[in-house]
Amino acid sequence: MNTENRTAEHIVKSYDDELKRLTGEIQRMGEIALAQLAAAINAVMERDSDAAMTVVQNDRSIDSLEQEVSHDVVRLLALRQPMAHDLREILAALRIAADIERIGDYAANVAKRSLVLNQSAPVQLTSALPRLARLAETLVREVLAAYQENDAGRALAAWARDEELDEQYTGLFRELLTYMMEDPRNITPCTHLLFMAKNIERIGDHATNIAENIYFLVHGTQIAQARRKGDSTSAMMIDDPR
Amino acid sequence: MNTENRTAEHIVKSYDDELKRLTGEIQRMGEIALAQLAAAINAVMERDSDAAMTVVQNDRSIDSLEQEVSHDVVRLLALRQPMAHDLREILAALRIAADIERIGDYAANVAKRSLVLNQSAPVQLTSALPRLARLAETLVREVLAAYQENDAGRALAAWARDEELDEQYTGLFRELLTYMMEDPRNITPCTHLLFMAKNIERIGDHATNIAENIYFLVHGTQIAQARRKGDSTSAMMIDDPR
Repeated sequence: MNTENRTAEHIVKSYDDELKRLTGEIQRMGEIALAQLAAAINAVMERDSDAAMTVVQNDRSIDSLEQEVSHDVVRLLALRQPMAHDLREILAALRIAADIERIGDYAANVAKRSLVLNQSAPVQLTSALPRLARLAETLVREVLAAYQENDAGRALAAWARDEELDEQYTGLFRELLTYMMEDPRNITPCTHLLFMAKNIERIGDHATNIAENIYFLVHGTQIAQARRKGDSTSAMMIDDPR
Repeated sequence: MNTENRTAEHIVKSYDDELKRLTGEIQRMGEIALAQLAAAINAVMERDSDAAMTVVQNDRSIDSLEQEVSHDVVRLLALRQPMAHDLREILAALRIAADIERIGDYAANVAKRSLVLNQSAPVQLTSALPRLARLAETLVREVLAAYQENDAGRALAAWARDEELDEQYTGLFRELLTYMMEDPRNITPCTHLLFMAKNIERIGDHATNIAENIYFLVHGTQIAQARRKGDSTSAMMIDDPR
């Protein structure tokens, strides 16, 4: 039977080979997600709807890679029945793949919204949006490298920089609100820009999730420092020094 | 050794008992997430900052339940080394727990933003926001029941209703934009309301994820119908009949 043949073929491979294949797929997912984010921001800045459509369509390739990872994880668990560290490694791969899939979704969402933005007159686009995206890209690139190299220190450094991303996001949020107040014609396009910025801020949160998984994988403990995660605009008007 | 004692104790339990414990934890997580969402919306409508703070703080209990689930999954995989359907069941539990944890996060985000909203003068709050939340609650409740009963039909029915949620969300989005255009003083509070609505819309997406997992668990195949998922406001200005 075909299934048995395939099973036999896999048993011949070493566990390390299988794991390498898995992390290779994850790195490939990460590379595509990063390319998608860069292409989405480019489509926004250039008002290039064709390029945006391409980003939306390409999201499927990340989704199908995630399904491959998921499939490989199930096969590895069933055939190898790994224990302790090996088991942790495989479950971390599953989680990291899920986070990258979400990062791809957010990049595709940015592209989708740019299609809408291009229906209205151009708004004053500051450099703040691509700057935010570049920082998010850096964080994702760093956690991918940390995963590749099993480097908890590098993961922790990227994790800490998410605060910087949150600050940039808050600045952009305020800036966009100001434009909206200046001219009601800005309200609709700036609302879409707000959601794009939010998507990018969320990419940073997923990068920190990945960093936390790597840290746990290496040290077996959680990142200890409690950091308020996410969107500080949800508290930006509170008159509280924190 | 203590660890060995605990291991021995667990081996005595039947696999079914362990699985029951796992799904019980997930149902408990789901109940808390639903209560959190209801409490958050109530805090928004009543402008009750104390109640909102309670919701924000309670999010931790969902997070720690998810960690328990995660821990139990690792133990089950390591000790029982399940194959085929059992393995799928355990991995589905892991995924469903992650989705519920996200639902809890979104409820907490709504509460967090209500704290900001209460800093500004009351805005005209339509019934659209609690209506949206009630529908999201229904979807989550339905997928939890479907999970409990292993009922793919019920999961599919809830999955299909996410489209209704998206439509309600789009209506609310337009309504809020209108308020913003009518009076610039509405811009900041309505922006926060937009993000709250978006959080609720995302809860619906996680309910559909759970439904997809249940469907796959029961039938071993993906839900076939391709449904455009998520936020249709990202395409609301495109002059396209789709």
